[in-house]
Amino acid sequence: MPVPPTVTCFARLLLRPFRRPKSFVPLSTHLNFRFFSANSNDMGTVDTTSRLAKLRELMKREKVDVYVIPSEDAHSSEYICAADARRAFISGFTGSAGCAIVTQEKAALSTDGRYFNQAARQLDNNWELLKQGLPDVPTWQEWVAQQAEGGKNVGVDATVITAQQAKGLETRIKKKGGTGLLGISVNLIDEVWGADRPNRPNNPVMVLEEKYSGKEFPLKIDAVRKELENKKSPGFVVSMLDEIAWLFNLRGTDIPYNPVFFSYAFISPKSTTLYIDSSKLDEKVIAHLGSAVTIRPYHAIFDEIVLLVQEFKAEQPEMDPKASEDGGKWLVSNKTSWALSKALGGEDSIEVIRSPVEEEKAVKNDTEKEGMKRCHIRDGAALIEYFAWLEDELLKGASIDEVQAADKLEQIRSRGENFKGLSFDTISSTGPNAAVIHYKPEAGNCSVIDPKAIYLCDSGAQYLDGTTDTTRTLHFGEPTDMERKSYTLVLRGMIALDRAIFPKGTSGFALDILARQFLWREGLDYRHGTGHGVGSFLNVHEGPFGIGTRIQYSEVALSPGMFVSNEPGYYEDGSFGIRIENVIMVKEVKTNHNFGDRPYFGFERVTMVPMCRKLIDADLLTPAETEWLNSYHAEVFEKTHGFFEEDSLALKWLKRETTPI
Amino acid sequence: MPVPPTVTCFARLLLRPFRRPKSFVPLSTHLNFRFFSANSNDMGTVDTTSRLAKLRELMKREKVDVYVIPSEDAHSSEYICAADARRAFISGFTGSAGCAIVTQEKAALSTDGRYFNQAARQLDNNWELLKQGLPDVPTWQEWVAQQAEGGKNVGVDATVITAQQAKGLETRIKKKGGTGLLGISVNLIDEVWGADRPNRPNNPVMVLEEKYSGKEFPLKIDAVRKELENKKSPGFVVSMLDEIAWLFNLRGTDIPYNPVFFSYAFISPKSTTLYIDSSKLDEKVIAHLGSAVTIRPYHAIFDEIVLLVQEFKAEQPEMDPKASEDGGKWLVSNKTSWALSKALGGEDSIEVIRSPVEEEKAVKNDTEKEGMKRCHIRDGAALIEYFAWLEDELLKGASIDEVQAADKLEQIRSRGENFKGLSFDTISSTGPNAAVIHYKPEAGNCSVIDPKAIYLCDSGAQYLDGTTDTTRTLHFGEPTDMERKSYTLVLRGMIALDRAIFPKGTSGFALDILARQFLWREGLDYRHGTGHGVGSFLNVHEGPFGIGTRIQYSEVALSPGMFVSNEPGYYEDGSFGIRIENVIMVKEVKTNHNFGDRPYFGFERVTMVPMCRKLIDADLLTPAETEWLNSYHAEVFEKTHGFFEEDSLALKWLKRETTPI
Repeated sequence: MPVPPTVTCFARLLLRPFRRPKSFVPLSTHLNFRFFSANSNDMGTVDTTSRLAKLRELMKREKVDVYVIPSEDAHSSEYICAADARRAFISGFTGSAGCAIVTQEKAALSTDGRYFNQAARQLDNNWELLKQGLPDVPTWQEWVAQQAEGGKNVGVDATVITAQQAKGLETRIKKKGGTGLLGISVNLIDEVWGADRPNRPNNPVMVLEEKYSGKEFPLKIDAVRKELENKKSPGFVVSMLDEIAWLFNLRGTDIPYNPVFFSYAFISPKSTTLYIDSSKLDEKVIAHLGSAVTIRPYHAIFDEIVLLVQEFKAEQPEMDPKASEDGGKWLVSNKTSWALSKALGGEDSIEVIRSPVEEEKAVKNDTEKEGMKRCHIRDGAALIEYFAWLEDELLKGASIDEVQAADKLEQIRSRGENFKGLSFDTISSTGPNAAVIHYKPEAGNCSVIDPKAIYLCDSGAQYLDGTTDTTRTLHFGEPTDMERKSYTLVLRGMIALDRAIFPKGTSGFALDILARQFLWREGLDYRHGTGHGVGSFLNVHEGPFGIGTRIQYSEVALSPGMFVSNEPGYYEDGSFGIRIENVIMVKEVKTNHNFGDRPYFGFERVTMVPMCRKLIDADLLTPAETEWLNSYHAEVFEKTHGFFEEDSLALKWLKRETTPI
Repeated sequence: MPVPPTVTCFARLLLRPFRRPKSFVPLSTHLNFRFFSANSNDMGTVDTTSRLAKLRELMKREKVDVYVIPSEDAHSSEYICAADARRAFISGFTGSAGCAIVTQEKAALSTDGRYFNQAARQLDNNWELLKQGLPDVPTWQEWVAQQAEGGKNVGVDATVITAQQAKGLETRIKKKGGTGLLGISVNLIDEVWGADRPNRPNNPVMVLEEKYSGKEFPLKIDAVRKELENKKSPGFVVSMLDEIAWLFNLRGTDIPYNPVFFSYAFISPKSTTLYIDSSKLDEKVIAHLGSAVTIRPYHAIFDEIVLLVQEFKAEQPEMDPKASEDGGKWLVSNKTSWALSKALGGEDSIEVIRSPVEEEKAVKNDTEKEGMKRCHIRDGAALIEYFAWLEDELLKGASIDEVQAADKLEQIRSRGENFKGLSFDTISSTGPNAAVIHYKPEAGNCSVIDPKAIYLCDSGAQYLDGTTDTTRTLHFGEPTDMERKSYTLVLRGMIALDRAIFPKGTSGFALDILARQFLWREGLDYRHGTGHGVGSFLNVHEGPFGIGTRIQYSEVALSPGMFVSNEPGYYEDGSFGIRIENVIMVKEVKTNHNFGDRPYFGFERVTMVPMCRKLIDADLLTPAETEWLNSYHAEVFEKTHGFFEEDSLALKWLKRETTPI
């Protein structure tokens, strides 16, 4: 699953469009998963007249002139649950990215180029569409500031905007002569929504055994305490859901595809508090957490943090101004909400850092490494079986649509050991659909797979021992010259990145060009990142590093134990799309020399699925690339053939596809 | 001439060590050039006892507890003149980079790894050496702040530190409990130096004719005014000397190797003022500047700016706070001194920008482009003649030392059309000396060139039509396997960067890995940047772009018309060094496709000197690289052979070295 090259609005949400978990398999069969559709690709227009009227009444009650409805939940999650889809509810626009703004007279929805058509169709005539990035179209922040001109105020639910975003917005508002930004404690949309609002998911939480997590959670918490000690800080608030799940070795099902659960955590030098509704916890979880972790209700964090801050201040001896400069601040990550930052005392009391939990989580321990490799072999075998089946069916003349194919793949995967569900909605796309980078086939409204066209499949699964994410592009007939050339250029870039050797300290920003260089030489490119971090039985996209042209990727060096996708592509609108994606692991390598006594790093191949022979123009490969391909295919065969019966379709397909070139 | 990969102290000075212009040829024969030696590589220890005693008296008079002596002049120049070498005078340490700090009890000198040995030798026992980058060694800023603990103050000449640096330093000082940073208007070192201080250079200025500059200067000033209009700014102060020279189509000789002159310029929407001592200007220059440019004395800028700011404030109607947020600020570049920023009213009245003059200067116009190409061919012919001569002499058994060789090269160059001097001190280094990246041979104290070892020559010249910078590494005997392998890896990186094709918007940070990738694969690397901008009859190092691992290089995209060096290397301490440097020009290229309707860019080869055949291991080259090499050599032959007599040594050498592989 690729991530886009640039972020224009709220960072996390744009990473990837939201998908309805149509065929989501519960992470654990005894856990109850709630379907929802608030954010689906459903293209109908909703009449928002009465919703807006109710909202405007509430705005009068709260004395708010301009009300902002961002897309985020309270945890800056990339995926949100149905109950948090407030922007979609109030505007009728169900795309993944965008911001709604309502005044007594106007209503506007700002979104990016991927969604101009969808938004135009879905918004009723109460709404003005602000097309992000077009000349002379204000950003949503600029539009908000314009509405606030002449002393008006702006309100927002302070839990769904980060402190940094709020600060930037407030500056703009004041610059235009508005009175400021109010962080409102009730969410007005929730009031409008009323009884129709989906329940918040409150699903049970499970313990991830140490044979999968590889590290007892108290040791992980000790590492956070080291950071507190370094920073002389009284405490760190963990607000990202995947960080909490990783930190406590717990998993949940509150958000589709992401095995996380709604919660906050607070770590001080001496205490650990998990803010979570206790109904989610069974005896096993309670025993696992033990007496060192205090359990408090999810929503209690705001009030208790305020008390905590007061207590801390009261306990302090006469403040030494020097000491306060050097430390003594509460730590939060840059994803923490404005509401939490305010509860901690605001800008002067907090230090915004890159979350130490995110950083430690990114570097997998030995158990996680082994699990990731093992589940990718298992997942590879499922993909091989699927591709062999699909080719066979199509060549026999069967009519299979994109969703039927995806369902078959899920069915094969679900038989695998440790399977817990998909890691995102399968992209199963034929011909021109493959050119839509984030294509999502809808049952009853998708294409039949054309055996004479490109077929692109980007998919992944959650296993107890890891998370997978693989893209292969196939052709079952005769590819065109341009298709073969493009595929081979993409493959060469993918190989160049896979073979890279680089000294410690090198970032994914510096490596990105390796994957694009051959496309660029032809005047070709792809409009998404080259690689993202992958969680271990956690989110399929995780930070803080990545490979791509986003300048943020220059901030974090690649380190041994990080798992990252390697997924260049090429897309020809209305015609075809190509993407090849392997997950690879950073590891230290032995080089012939060792200049500067620095360690040198390279990658280990984790994904085990053959490339498409038909799409490779072997004449375009250098000897080193051919050697890489043959060696990779030998490894794929070696690691996966044991999954298949003698004379099975899958084994025949695997043998054919992995024969040396 | 390479630039280092990271900057640890003041940015510009570290770009390259200062060199004594031992054999500097005046830029124009009628201009009088002053030699100086304050910053030479002379290794003697100076007794600084009485200098420090005098300084401490003055510090008492000025009520300064801690006095900081940076290396910079008032223009953040990379090279300084003798009169500005205050840090060298007070400390005795003559390296190019470092900062001296003096208190009533202590004196410390902070410098980087290149100079640990030299500083240890040169500093007398009044001084403590702070080795930058070593664990547990404070930076000079930290050391300053420590000295200020307990309410002490710190003083610095506000003209030799930028506003940004001063602000950072003041924050540290206050954090440690110091009272703050005083910008002092007199330079205490100059008072200590007294009559022994070299005179400030006050050399005549010359007009650069339009046939070399390609653009009348009023048009350049109009472009600055456009920027003022965009920013609604009342004026821009130009403080960098090369920017002023470029802007007014003037050249000077106040600083060695850099054809610039001491001056400031101030551009407002309606007026242009050049602050320069009028004794530097002859009738021709005055006529060239015409009546639209007001000439004022160099030092008058500080007082006049203060008046100007007052006048501007008085003329303003009742201030509209909104308007003042949106504009109305004086523009300065981030290289402008704290003194000038303060004169303009400080932080609230100025906007720090990337200088629009620097940006426009970086993109050469057609005349400059042609001049740069022409002078590189002429300069290439001089290098070819030199290398042929050197090889012949050495093989005949002559004893030639590094300085004699460099002098011969300069003599050959000086016969070339439009020659105005060298663009930096020639690096002429044999065997292990070649491993010293910024080696500077000293007459009487240098090595005889060993015909059985590597010889590295990095040199360049100033011509009326352009500035050159070329490095070639040669071998006159039998290279070792490691020397050939290293040379070939360096060459492959150099070719990979030269052949790169990239979309508009790509920076030199993104391209850097292309030059290093083959070395990295072997665990090899080089500790300097890959490329720097080159001026046109201006400084051999210019911004704002570059190619390398410094994150600043990600901020500016490469654009057609920029000239940049391409100079990977490899250095084995105590054994040998390799560097290959071509100047290349960014240009738009035609690609087979045009994804995203963006222009794609590549490079045109500007430097015309053969590679060393003996050092190339052709087996390590790919077919594409061999093709590049043969095509480059054909071009070198084509463009330079006309400079040589039939049967000359040079022509024979050229033919042999450019024969296809």
